[in-house]
Amino acid sequence: MQYAVLGTGVVGQTIATKLVTLGHEVRLGSRSADNPAAVEWAAAHSRGSATTFADAATFGEVVVNCLPGAVVLAVLEALAEEVGDKVLIDVSNPLDFSQGLPPTLSVCNTDSLAEQIQRALPSAKVVKALNTVNADIMVNPGLLSESTDLFLAGNDDQAKASVRSLLVEFGWRDEFIHDCGQVSTARGLEMYLLMWLNLMGATGSAHFNIHVVRADGDPPTG
Amino acid sequence: MQYAVLGTGVVGQTIATKLVTLGHEVRLGSRSADNPAAVEWAAAHSRGSATTFADAATFGEVVVNCLPGAVVLAVLEALAEEVGDKVLIDVSNPLDFSQGLPPTLSVCNTDSLAEQIQRALPSAKVVKALNTVNADIMVNPGLLSESTDLFLAGNDDQAKASVRSLLVEFGWRDEFIHDCGQVSTARGLEMYLLMWLNLMGATGSAHFNIHVVRADGDPPTG
Repeated sequence: MQYAVLGTGVVGQTIATKLVTLGHEVRLGSRSADNPAAVEWAAAHSRGSATTFADAATFGEVVVNCLPGAVVLAVLEALAEEVGDKVLIDVSNPLDFSQGLPPTLSVCNTDSLAEQIQRALPSAKVVKALNTVNADIMVNPGLLSESTDLFLAGNDDQAKASVRSLLVEFGWRDEFIHDCGQVSTARGLEMYLLMWLNLMGATGSAHFNIHVVRADGDPPTG
Repeated sequence: MQYAVLGTGVVGQTIATKLVTLGHEVRLGSRSADNPAAVEWAAAHSRGSATTFADAATFGEVVVNCLPGAVVLAVLEALAEEVGDKVLIDVSNPLDFSQGLPPTLSVCNTDSLAEQIQRALPSAKVVKALNTVNADIMVNPGLLSESTDLFLAGNDDQAKASVRSLLVEFGWRDEFIHDCGQVSTARGLEMYLLMWLNLMGATGSAHFNIHVVRADGDPPTG
Protein backbone atom coordinates (compact mmCIF):
# COMPACT_ATOMS: atom_id res chain seq x y z
CA MET A 1 0.00 0.00 0.00
CA GLN A 2 0.97 3.64 -0.42
CA TYR A 3 0.93 5.69 2.76
CA ALA A 4 1.26 9.40 3.49
CA VAL A 5 2.65 10.11 6.93
CA LEU A 6 2.20 13.76 7.89
CA GLY A 7 4.61 14.96 10.56
CA THR A 8 8.30 14.22 10.95
CA GLY A 9 8.50 14.04 14.74
CA VAL A 10 9.02 10.87 16.76
CA VAL A 11 5.49 9.58 16.11
CA GLY A 12 5.61 10.24 12.36
CA GLN A 13 9.06 8.71 11.91
CA THR A 14 8.22 5.70 14.09
CA ILE A 15 5.05 4.91 12.15
CA ALA A 16 6.71 5.59 8.81
CA THR A 17 9.55 3.22 9.68
CA LYS A 18 7.12 0.50 10.72
CA LEU A 19 5.19 0.89 7.48
CA VAL A 20 8.26 0.56 5.23
CA THR A 21 9.47 -2.39 7.33
CA LEU A 22 6.14 -4.06 6.58
CA GLY A 23 6.76 -3.52 2.85
CA HIS A 24 4.62 -0.43 2.28
CA GLU A 25 5.65 2.67 0.34
CA VAL A 26 5.72 5.82 2.46
CA ARG A 27 6.00 9.49 1.69
CA LEU A 28 6.85 11.43 4.82
CA GLY A 29 5.30 14.88 4.49
CA SER A 30 6.40 18.13 6.05
CA ARG A 31 6.16 21.85 5.30
CA SER A 32 9.03 21.67 2.83
CA ALA A 33 10.53 18.76 0.90
CA ASP A 34 13.97 19.51 2.32
CA ASN A 35 13.02 19.06 5.99
CA PRO A 36 16.31 17.72 7.42
CA ALA A 37 14.66 15.10 9.66
CA ALA A 38 12.56 13.78 6.77
CA VAL A 39 15.46 13.78 4.31
CA GLU A 40 17.62 11.87 6.78
CA TRP A 41 14.83 9.37 7.41
CA ALA A 42 14.23 8.86 3.67
CA ALA A 43 17.93 8.28 3.02
CA ALA A 44 17.82 5.37 5.46
CA HIS A 45 14.67 3.71 4.05
CA SER A 46 14.52 2.63 0.40
CA ARG A 47 10.70 2.48 0.37
CA GLY A 48 10.45 5.93 1.94
CA SER A 49 10.80 9.44 0.59
CA ALA A 50 10.66 12.96 1.99
CA THR A 51 8.24 15.39 0.44
CA THR A 52 5.67 18.13 1.09
CA PHE A 53 2.40 17.63 2.90
CA ALA A 54 0.48 18.05 -0.38
CA ASP A 55 2.62 15.63 -2.37
CA ALA A 56 2.47 13.02 0.39
CA ALA A 57 -1.30 13.35 0.72
CA THR A 58 -1.68 12.94 -3.05
CA PHE A 59 0.53 9.85 -3.09
CA GLY A 60 -0.97 8.08 -0.08
CA GLU A 61 -3.91 5.73 -0.45
CA VAL A 62 -4.17 6.20 3.31
CA VAL A 63 -3.09 9.35 5.17
CA VAL A 64 -1.71 9.14 8.71
CA ASN A 65 -1.87 12.37 10.72
CA CYS A 66 1.06 12.47 13.16
CA LEU A 67 1.23 16.25 13.45
CA PRO A 68 1.45 18.11 16.76
CA GLY A 69 -2.06 19.01 17.93
CA ALA A 70 -1.44 22.75 17.67
CA VAL A 71 -0.86 22.69 13.89
CA VAL A 72 -3.16 19.86 12.79
CA LEU A 73 -6.11 21.91 11.59
CA ALA A 74 -4.11 24.53 9.73
CA VAL A 75 -2.20 21.87 7.81
CA LEU A 76 -5.11 19.56 7.07
CA GLU A 77 -7.53 22.31 6.00
CA ALA A 78 -5.15 23.06 3.14
CA LEU A 79 -5.16 19.39 2.05
CA ALA A 80 -8.89 18.84 1.52
CA GLU A 81 -8.45 18.17 -2.19
CA GLU A 82 -5.44 15.86 -1.81
CA VAL A 83 -7.04 13.84 1.01
CA GLY A 84 -10.42 13.66 -0.71
CA ASP A 85 -12.37 10.63 0.51
CA LYS A 86 -9.35 8.64 1.69
CA VAL A 87 -8.99 7.02 5.07
CA LEU A 88 -7.29 9.51 7.41
CA ILE A 89 -5.84 7.87 10.51
CA ASP A 90 -5.67 10.53 13.22
CA VAL A 91 -2.95 9.73 15.74
CA SER A 92 -2.68 13.28 17.05
CA ASN A 93 -3.61 14.69 20.45
CA PRO A 94 -4.82 18.25 21.16
CA LEU A 95 -2.13 18.87 23.74
CA ASP A 96 -1.57 22.51 24.60
CA PHE A 97 1.82 23.24 26.15
CA SER A 98 1.45 27.02 25.88
CA GLN A 99 0.67 27.36 29.61
CA GLY A 100 3.56 25.10 30.63
CA LEU A 101 3.45 21.65 32.24
CA PRO A 102 1.35 19.67 32.69
CA PRO A 103 -0.29 20.35 29.34
CA THR A 104 -4.02 20.93 28.96
CA LEU A 105 -6.17 20.04 25.96
CA SER A 106 -6.98 22.71 23.38
CA VAL A 107 -10.35 21.03 22.77
CA CYS A 108 -12.31 18.53 24.87
CA ASN A 109 -15.58 17.53 26.51
CA THR A 110 -18.05 18.81 23.90
CA ASP A 111 -15.77 18.45 20.88
CA SER A 112 -12.52 16.79 19.87
CA LEU A 113 -9.66 17.28 17.46
CA ALA A 114 -10.83 14.28 15.43
CA GLU A 115 -14.27 15.85 15.04
CA GLN A 116 -12.71 19.15 14.03
CA ILE A 117 -10.71 17.31 11.38
CA GLN A 118 -13.82 15.48 10.17
CA ARG A 119 -15.68 18.80 9.86
CA ALA A 120 -12.75 20.41 8.04
CA LEU A 121 -12.48 17.45 5.63
CA PRO A 122 -16.07 16.19 5.38
CA SER A 123 -15.30 13.67 2.61
CA ALA A 124 -12.38 12.09 4.44
CA LYS A 125 -12.90 8.91 6.44
CA VAL A 126 -11.37 9.98 9.75
CA VAL A 127 -10.42 7.17 12.14
CA LYS A 128 -8.95 8.06 15.51
CA ALA A 129 -6.41 5.44 16.56
CA LEU A 130 -3.11 4.90 18.36
CA ASN A 131 -3.25 8.25 20.20
CA THR A 132 -3.47 6.47 23.57
CA VAL A 133 0.04 4.98 23.57
CA ASN A 134 3.64 6.07 23.26
CA ALA A 135 5.18 5.81 19.78
CA ASP A 136 7.35 2.82 20.69
CA ILE A 137 4.27 0.91 21.83
CA MET A 138 2.24 1.92 18.76
CA VAL A 139 4.42 -0.16 16.47
CA ASN A 140 5.66 -2.73 18.98
CA PRO A 141 2.93 -3.72 21.42
CA GLY A 142 5.00 -6.79 22.35
CA LEU A 143 7.30 -4.45 24.26
CA LEU A 144 4.81 -4.74 27.12
CA SER A 145 4.66 -7.76 29.39
CA GLU A 146 1.04 -8.60 28.50
CA SER A 147 -1.29 -7.94 25.57
CA THR A 148 -3.01 -4.55 25.84
CA ASP A 149 -5.78 -2.70 24.10
CA LEU A 150 -6.38 -0.06 21.44
CA PHE A 151 -9.44 1.97 20.57
CA LEU A 152 -11.02 3.20 17.34
CA ALA A 153 -13.43 6.07 16.73
CA GLY A 154 -14.87 7.06 13.37
CA ASN A 155 -18.03 7.29 11.31
CA ASP A 156 -17.10 4.82 8.55
CA ASP A 157 -17.17 1.12 9.42
CA GLN A 158 -15.18 0.05 6.38
CA ALA A 159 -12.48 2.59 7.17
CA LYS A 160 -12.33 1.34 10.77
CA ALA A 161 -12.02 -2.23 9.50
CA SER A 162 -9.06 -1.25 7.32
CA VAL A 163 -7.35 0.54 10.20
CA ARG A 164 -7.98 -2.49 12.39
CA SER A 165 -6.18 -4.65 9.79
CA LEU A 166 -3.23 -2.30 9.79
CA LEU A 167 -3.06 -2.38 13.60
CA VAL A 168 -3.03 -6.17 13.48
CA GLU A 169 -0.12 -5.86 11.00
CA PHE A 170 1.57 -3.69 13.64
CA GLY A 171 1.23 -6.57 16.12
CA TRP A 172 -1.98 -5.69 17.99
CA ARG A 173 -4.45 -8.43 18.88
CA ASP A 174 -7.65 -8.06 16.89
CA GLU A 175 -9.90 -8.94 19.85
CA PHE A 176 -8.18 -6.26 21.97
CA ILE A 177 -9.01 -3.47 19.49
CA HIS A 178 -12.25 -1.83 20.64
CA ASP A 179 -14.50 0.08 18.27
CA CYS A 180 -15.86 2.89 20.44
CA GLY A 181 -18.30 4.15 17.82
CA GLN A 182 -18.73 7.38 15.88
CA VAL A 183 -16.00 10.01 15.60
CA SER A 184 -17.53 11.87 18.57
CA THR A 185 -16.21 9.09 20.83
CA ALA A 186 -12.75 10.43 20.04
CA ARG A 187 -13.50 12.88 22.88
CA GLY A 188 -12.97 10.03 25.32
CA LEU A 189 -9.83 8.81 23.56
CA GLU A 190 -8.31 12.30 23.59
CA MET A 191 -9.40 13.15 27.17
CA TYR A 192 -7.70 9.93 28.28
CA LEU A 193 -4.45 11.78 27.64
CA LEU A 194 -4.56 13.43 31.06
CA MET A 195 -5.01 9.98 32.57
CA TRP A 196 -2.10 8.78 30.43
CA LEU A 197 0.06 11.58 31.86
CA ASN A 198 -1.01 10.53 35.38
CA LEU A 199 0.02 6.96 34.65
CA MET A 200 3.33 7.99 33.14
CA GLY A 201 3.99 9.87 36.38
CA ALA A 202 2.88 6.97 38.57
CA THR A 203 4.80 4.29 36.67
CA GLY A 204 7.83 6.42 35.83
CA SER A 205 7.81 5.36 32.19
CA ALA A 206 6.04 6.09 28.90
CA HIS A 207 6.17 2.39 28.12
CA PHE A 208 2.83 1.19 29.42
CA ASN A 209 -0.70 0.71 28.21
CA ILE A 210 -4.04 -0.41 29.55
CA HIS A 211 -5.88 -3.69 29.16
CA VAL A 212 -9.64 -3.77 29.50
CA VAL A 213 -10.66 -6.57 31.87
CA ARG A 214 -14.22 -7.82 31.91
CA ALA A 215 -16.29 -9.98 34.22
CA ASP A 216 -15.93 -13.75 33.93
CA GLY A 217 -18.03 -15.06 31.13
CA ASP A 218 -18.44 -11.75 29.31
CA PRO A 219 -18.12 -12.39 25.58
CA PRO A 220 -15.09 -10.97 23.78
CA THR A 221 -15.54 -7.70 21.91
CA GLY A 222 -14.17 -6.58 18.60
CA MET B 1 -14.07 2.91 62.22
CA GLN B 2 -16.91 5.39 61.93
CA TYR B 3 -17.80 6.42 58.39
CA ALA B 4 -20.07 9.06 56.92
CA VAL B 5 -21.39 8.13 53.50
CA LEU B 6 -22.99 11.11 51.77
CA GLY B 7 -25.48 10.19 49.07
CA THR B 8 -28.11 7.45 49.08
CA GLY B 9 -27.92 6.40 45.43
CA VAL B 10 -26.46 3.14 44.15
CA VAL B 11 -22.86 4.20 44.84
CA GLY B 12 -23.57 5.44 48.37
CA GLN B 13 -25.61 2.39 49.35
CA THR B 14 -23.10 -0.02 47.81
CA ILE B 15 -20.16 1.52 49.66
CA ALA B 16 -22.14 1.84 52.90
CA THR B 17 -23.12 -1.83 52.73
CA LYS B 18 -19.52 -2.88 52.11
CA LEU B 19 -18.35 -0.80 55.07
CA VAL B 20 -20.85 -2.31 57.53
CA THR B 21 -20.09 -5.79 56.17
CA LEU B 22 -16.45 -5.14 57.06
CA GLY B 23 -17.51 -4.25 60.61
CA HIS B 24 -17.48 -0.47 60.39
CA GLU B 25 -20.20 1.86 61.71
CA VAL B 26 -21.86 3.90 58.96
CA ARG B 27 -24.18 6.88 58.95
CA LEU B 28 -25.75 7.30 55.55
CA GLY B 29 -26.42 11.01 55.04
CA SER B 30 -29.02 12.69 52.92
CA ARG B 31 -30.95 15.97 52.86
CA SER B 32 -33.38 14.74 55.48
CA ALA B 33 -33.15 11.97 58.09
CA ASP B 34 -36.33 10.37 56.75
CA ASN B 35 -35.06 9.77 53.21
CA PRO B 36 -36.91 6.55 52.29
CA ALA B 37 -33.97 4.87 50.55
CA ALA B 38 -31.68 5.60 53.50
CA VAL B 39 -34.23 4.52 56.11
CA GLU B 40 -34.81 1.25 54.25
CA TRP B 41 -31.06 0.66 53.97
CA ALA B 42 -30.53 1.37 57.68
CA ALA B 43 -33.32 -1.01 58.68
CA ALA B 44 -31.46 -3.82 56.92
CA HIS B 45 -28.02 -3.11 58.43
CA SER B 46 -27.51 -3.12 62.19
CA ARG B 47 -24.28 -1.11 62.02
CA GLY B 48 -25.89 1.48 59.75
CA SER B 49 -28.20 4.40 60.36
CA ALA B 50 -29.95 7.00 58.24
CA THR B 51 -29.39 10.64 59.08
CA THR B 52 -28.74 14.12 57.73
CA PHE B 53 -25.63 15.16 55.84
CA ALA B 54 -24.49 17.25 58.83
CA ASP B 55 -25.05 14.53 61.41
CA ALA B 56 -23.31 11.93 59.26
CA ALA B 57 -20.33 14.22 58.63
CA THR B 58 -20.06 14.91 62.37
CA PHE B 59 -20.17 11.19 63.19
CA GLY B 60 -17.73 9.98 60.55
CA GLU B 61 -14.02 9.78 61.20
CA VAL B 62 -13.82 9.52 57.43
CA VAL B 63 -16.34 11.08 55.01
CA VAL B 64 -17.13 9.40 51.69
CA ASN B 65 -18.65 11.67 49.05
CA CYS B 66 -20.97 9.60 46.84
CA LEU B 67 -23.19 12.50 45.76
CA PRO B 68 -24.19 13.16 42.15
CA GLY B 69 -21.72 15.59 40.60
CA ALA B 70 -24.31 18.31 40.11
CA VAL B 71 -25.02 18.73 43.85
CA VAL B 72 -21.60 17.96 45.37
CA LEU B 73 -20.39 21.50 45.92
CA ALA B 74 -23.63 22.90 47.30
CA VAL B 75 -23.85 20.08 49.87
CA LEU B 76 -20.19 20.02 50.89
CA GLU B 77 -19.80 23.79 51.19
CA ALA B 78 -22.37 23.66 53.98
CA LEU B 79 -20.39 20.96 55.82
CA ALA B 80 -17.03 22.70 56.22
CA GLU B 81 -17.27 22.69 60.02
CA GLU B 82 -18.46 19.07 60.31
CA VAL B 83 -15.83 17.74 57.89
CA GLY B 84 -13.05 19.85 59.39
CA ASP B 85 -9.66 18.23 58.71
CA LYS B 86 -10.98 14.71 58.17
CA VAL B 87 -10.16 12.49 55.23
CA LEU B 88 -12.80 13.06 52.53
CA ILE B 89 -12.88 10.29 49.93
CA ASP B 90 -14.31 11.77 46.76
CA VAL B 91 -15.96 9.09 44.64
CA SER B 92 -18.08 11.52 42.62
CA ASN B 93 -17.86 12.46 38.96
CA PRO B 94 -18.78 15.85 37.45
CA LEU B 95 -21.19 14.30 34.96
CA ASP B 96 -23.64 16.74 33.40
CA PHE B 97 -26.74 15.12 31.95
CA SER B 98 -28.55 18.44 31.41
CA GLN B 99 -27.87 18.35 27.65
CA GLY B 100 -28.93 14.71 27.30
CA LEU B 101 -26.81 11.68 26.44
CA PRO B 102 -23.94 11.14 26.27
CA PRO B 103 -23.17 13.31 29.31
CA THR B 104 -20.44 15.91 29.32
CA LEU B 105 -18.34 17.03 32.28
CA SER B 106 -19.32 20.15 34.20
CA VAL B 107 -15.64 20.82 34.92
CA CYS B 108 -12.49 19.44 33.28
CA ASN B 109 -9.11 20.11 31.68
CA THR B 110 -7.95 23.07 33.81
CA ASP B 111 -9.84 22.14 36.98
CA SER B 112 -11.69 19.21 38.52
CA LEU B 113 -14.48 18.52 40.94
CA ALA B 114 -11.97 17.19 43.47
CA GLU B 115 -10.02 20.44 43.30
CA GLN B 116 -13.21 22.44 43.69
CA ILE B 117 -14.02 20.40 46.81
CA GLN B 118 -10.51 20.91 48.16
CA ARG B 119 -10.82 24.67 47.66
CA ALA B 120 -14.28 24.73 49.28
CA LEU B 121 -13.01 22.70 52.28
CA PRO B 122 -9.36 23.73 52.56
CA SER B 123 -8.79 21.86 55.84
CA ALA B 124 -10.20 18.58 54.56
CA LYS B 125 -7.88 15.89 53.25
CA VAL B 126 -9.52 15.22 49.90
CA VAL B 127 -8.59 11.94 48.22
CA LYS B 128 -10.07 11.13 44.82
CA ALA B 129 -10.65 7.39 44.50
CA LEU B 130 -12.96 4.74 43.07
CA ASN B 131 -14.60 7.13 40.58
CA THR B 132 -13.20 5.12 37.65
CA VAL B 133 -15.27 1.96 38.17
CA ASN B 134 -18.90 0.89 38.47
CA ALA B 135 -20.26 0.58 42.03
CA ASP B 136 -20.34 -3.24 41.92
CA ILE B 137 -16.65 -3.31 41.00
CA MET B 138 -15.73 -0.71 43.66
CA VAL B 139 -16.53 -3.12 46.47
CA ASN B 140 -15.97 -6.41 44.64
CA PRO B 141 -12.99 -6.18 42.29
CA GLY B 142 -12.95 -9.98 42.15
CA LEU B 143 -16.04 -9.79 39.95
CA LEU B 144 -13.61 -9.25 37.07
CA SER B 145 -11.65 -12.07 35.48
CA GLU B 146 -8.23 -10.56 36.29
CA SER B 147 -6.88 -8.11 38.85
CA THR B 148 -7.32 -4.50 37.77
CA ASP B 149 -6.17 -1.09 38.91
CA LEU B 150 -7.30 1.91 40.90
CA PHE B 151 -5.96 5.44 41.13
CA LEU B 152 -5.53 7.97 43.92
CA ALA B 153 -5.17 11.76 43.76
CA GLY B 154 -4.76 14.05 46.75
CA ASN B 155 -2.40 16.43 48.51
CA ASP B 156 -1.96 14.51 51.78
CA ASP B 157 0.20 11.38 51.69
CA GLN B 158 -1.06 10.06 55.02
CA ALA B 159 -4.65 10.44 53.88
CA LYS B 160 -3.86 8.60 50.66
CA ALA B 161 -2.21 5.82 52.67
CA SER B 162 -5.35 5.41 54.78
CA VAL B 163 -7.57 5.31 51.69
CA ARG B 164 -5.23 2.75 50.15
CA SER B 165 -5.68 0.56 53.25
CA LEU B 166 -9.45 0.82 52.95
CA LEU B 167 -9.29 -0.15 49.27
CA VAL B 168 -7.21 -3.19 50.18
CA GLU B 169 -9.97 -4.04 52.73
CA PHE B 170 -12.39 -3.78 49.80
CA GLY B 171 -10.35 -6.42 47.96
CA TRP B 172 -8.07 -4.33 45.74
CA ARG B 173 -4.43 -5.35 45.27
CA ASP B 174 -2.11 -2.86 46.94
CA GLU B 175 0.43 -2.94 44.11
CA PHE B 176 -2.33 -2.18 41.58
CA ILE B 177 -3.35 1.05 43.35
CA HIS B 178 -1.52 3.93 41.69
CA ASP B 179 -0.86 7.21 43.45
CA CYS B 180 -1.15 9.78 40.66
CA GLY B 181 0.01 12.69 42.80
CA GLN B 182 -1.57 15.93 43.99
CA VAL B 183 -5.30 16.60 43.87
CA SER B 184 -4.87 18.31 40.49
CA THR B 185 -4.27 14.88 38.95
CA ALA B 186 -7.94 14.20 39.66
CA ARG B 187 -8.49 15.99 36.34
CA GLY B 188 -7.20 12.90 34.57
CA LEU B 189 -9.24 10.55 36.75
CA GLU B 190 -12.43 12.49 36.08
CA MET B 191 -11.77 13.03 32.36
CA TYR B 192 -11.30 9.26 32.05
CA LEU B 193 -15.09 9.07 32.50
CA LEU B 194 -15.68 9.74 28.81
CA MET B 195 -13.29 6.90 28.03
CA TRP B 196 -15.19 4.77 30.55
CA LEU B 197 -18.43 5.52 28.70
CA ASN B 198 -16.74 4.53 25.43
CA LEU B 199 -15.66 1.24 26.95
CA MET B 200 -19.07 0.54 28.42
CA GLY B 201 -20.46 1.00 24.92
CA ALA B 202 -17.79 -1.16 23.31
CA THR B 203 -17.99 -3.99 25.85
CA GLY B 204 -21.76 -3.80 26.41
CA SER B 205 -21.39 -3.85 30.19
CA ALA B 206 -20.53 -1.60 33.12
CA HIS B 207 -18.63 -4.48 34.67
CA PHE B 208 -15.11 -3.87 33.44
CA ASN B 209 -12.00 -2.04 34.51
CA ILE B 210 -8.52 -1.37 33.22
CA HIS B 211 -5.21 -2.90 34.17
CA VAL B 212 -2.02 -0.95 33.61
CA VAL B 213 0.54 -3.13 31.82
CA ARG B 214 4.18 -2.17 31.81
CA ALA B 215 7.25 -3.26 29.89
CA ASP B 216 9.02 -6.40 31.00
CA GLY B 217 11.35 -5.68 33.85
CA ASP B 218 9.74 -2.42 34.92
CA PRO B 219 9.62 -2.31 38.71
CA PRO B 220 6.20 -2.51 40.38
CA THR B 221 4.62 0.73 41.49
CA GLY B 222 2.62 1.54 44.60
